[in-house]
Amino acid sequence: MIIQKTTQPRIHNFDPKNFTFGNDFIDHMLICEYENGKWGEPKIMPYGPLGFTPAMMGINYGQACFEGMKAYKDKNGDVFLFRPEKNFKRINKSAKRLAMPEISEEIFMEGLKALVDIDRDWVPYGEGTSLYLRPLIFATEEALKARIATKYMFAIVATPVKNYYSEPISVKIADYYSRSASGGVGSAKAAGNYAAAFYPTKLANEEGYEQIIWTDDNTHEYFEESGTMNVFVRINDTIYTPPVSEKILDGVTRDSFIQLAKHNNIEVKDEPISVKLVLEAHSKGELKEVWGVGTAVVTNVFKALGYKDKKYNLPDLKEEESFSLKLKKQLVGIQTNEAEDPFGWRIKVEKKY
Amino acid sequence: MIIQKTTQPRIHNFDPKNFTFGNDFIDHMLICEYENGKWGEPKIMPYGPLGFTPAMMGINYGQACFEGMKAYKDKNGDVFLFRPEKNFKRINKSAKRLAMPEISEEIFMEGLKALVDIDRDWVPYGEGTSLYLRPLIFATEEALKARIATKYMFAIVATPVKNYYSEPISVKIADYYSRSASGGVGSAKAAGNYAAAFYPTKLANEEGYEQIIWTDDNTHEYFEESGTMNVFVRINDTIYTPPVSEKILDGVTRDSFIQLAKHNNIEVKDEPISVKLVLEAHSKGELKEVWGVGTAVVTNVFKALGYKDKKYNLPDLKEEESFSLKLKKQLVGIQTNEAEDPFGWRIKVEKKY
Repeated sequence: MIIQKTTQPRIHNFDPKNFTFGNDFIDHMLICEYENGKWGEPKIMPYGPLGFTPAMMGINYGQACFEGMKAYKDKNGDVFLFRPEKNFKRINKSAKRLAMPEISEEIFMEGLKALVDIDRDWVPYGEGTSLYLRPLIFATEEALKARIATKYMFAIVATPVKNYYSEPISVKIADYYSRSASGGVGSAKAAGNYAAAFYPTKLANEEGYEQIIWTDDNTHEYFEESGTMNVFVRINDTIYTPPVSEKILDGVTRDSFIQLAKHNNIEVKDEPISVKLVLEAHSKGELKEVWGVGTAVVTNVFKALGYKDKKYNLPDLKEEESFSLKLKKQLVGIQTNEAEDPFGWRIKVEKKY
Repeated sequence: MIIQKTTQPRIHNFDPKNFTFGNDFIDHMLICEYENGKWGEPKIMPYGPLGFTPAMMGINYGQACFEGMKAYKDKNGDVFLFRPEKNFKRINKSAKRLAMPEISEEIFMEGLKALVDIDRDWVPYGEGTSLYLRPLIFATEEALKARIATKYMFAIVATPVKNYYSEPISVKIADYYSRSASGGVGSAKAAGNYAAAFYPTKLANEEGYEQIIWTDDNTHEYFEESGTMNVFVRINDTIYTPPVSEKILDGVTRDSFIQLAKHNNIEVKDEPISVKLVLEAHSKGELKEVWGVGTAVVTNVFKALGYKDKKYNLPDLKEEESFSLKLKKQLVGIQTNEAEDPFGWRIKVEKKY
């Protein structure tokens, strides 16, 4: 690994008490180029622009996938990653579906740890704060032909983030637009999946909903995901979440919630959730909670579901009654080294560089 | 429009008798940036790299769409565009579906004509040659948040192309993978649609098929597109092509083929084509031709269809018996100013710069 440290660090201008989400980048980034059938030597270098023309294939034909993960700082100043091996496996699953070269575990893991180590001062400490890490692979070859590219870049960029307390939101159950096709790329973190969701989400916003619960494109009868998150439903004291599939992302937070729920002796059913089931439970007063989970905000609690011009309000549970908030608290405790980690999820980033 | 001509033209090193498809870029490119809710002044400048970081939103969240179109040179050295207003309208349709800002007709059309005019020496003359033009819009903002970007670039890059005579190909009818969802972005020229098709196409290649005929993701019973082209089927003397929809691209070559067929008094049915209809016609000896149409290669004639482990060979028609080759010849004649243009499709690029 080549390490070229910046001579003009910006860390001193960064105020960890006062910053906005996703716009401040840490001093360094990792890049690694793929050419002639193999990955080259990874390089940590100052964050900044690289030279790409508008003929770059990644931007023309969408061969681009990414991961979202975080590093956390504890009260002693130690820095931790959370289940990074899940992100490593998933970026390669995404890459394969988009006919892109897979990255080696060594480049991904050692690159990730070195970058976080070198820029450890950028990892904020304090409730709801973390360093958001964005590994991505994209086609860099310049050619105007719709075919598999021969040149790629693996990169990791990162930005400090702060999750302000997020108010419960209203979500609309999709009855026309869809985010993924059967036999499509829904389970990949493919760049194109996100852009495809923006316009329907904008329309939902105009109707007063913050997000969409995506349903299957064929019948719109089954829940798939919620916004860019996996979705959970609690009916009485049982939690339901749609099984992962080629259409549904195998979320790290989703899997962690399932394991934590079981650890708490909460029944979890990993099975299709129909709109009908949810609305019937609502009418019987058995629908307790619906929420989304994902790396970026951990949990989005829903206060209302919209479906075909009707709005269904959800109970306003107290924190101690809520499964979503209980599980979120436990998860964040593990991530930030404030609680025991019976699962072995937390990985300390050693000081090396 | 700002025009900054290159001081180091590469045109003298370009051999129009000997080049490969899509890798040589003309001396100039057009760029135009969108910020603070409006498009800036377009600029023609030397083709080359611009500065983008791996946090560029277009590469992370797939807000990127493009057009494919061509400029042709006639024997007098005059240069022509073909139905550019169709590409202008479609790029804005794609942009809208991806929640991107639409480009003005003035920037698109005047920019296109100025670029082709300035680099008119790059338009090759001779059978099957043309200058392939690639207008595209992509998100340039640097931010790690899955939301609609606030900064974009409209660009036009171009490469001389030569269509070598293409042998008839074998295509596989999709029975598992899909390119678009109901309520999805299939009718947009969205970057992500192309990457999603590469892996299934690679699998088809491994089975001995050059391309895929995409079918609906729900039942796989209806034809949608073929590779990156629209698909046509001839049963006896009637031509069928699937109607454009939110899943099927409104192709310029598709529309031109339909109009030309009608002009030739050939019956055209713009209606769903079932796999069953096609295979039944084949068994009765009524399936005469199946072919794809698109800007890049105009026509791909199919010699065999694969469906669920069976291969169905298509008749090897003589050129004078073939509707696809007849219509292709007429279309290319209009495009290259070797034939009358009763439709008003051809637009001459005037010398101005």
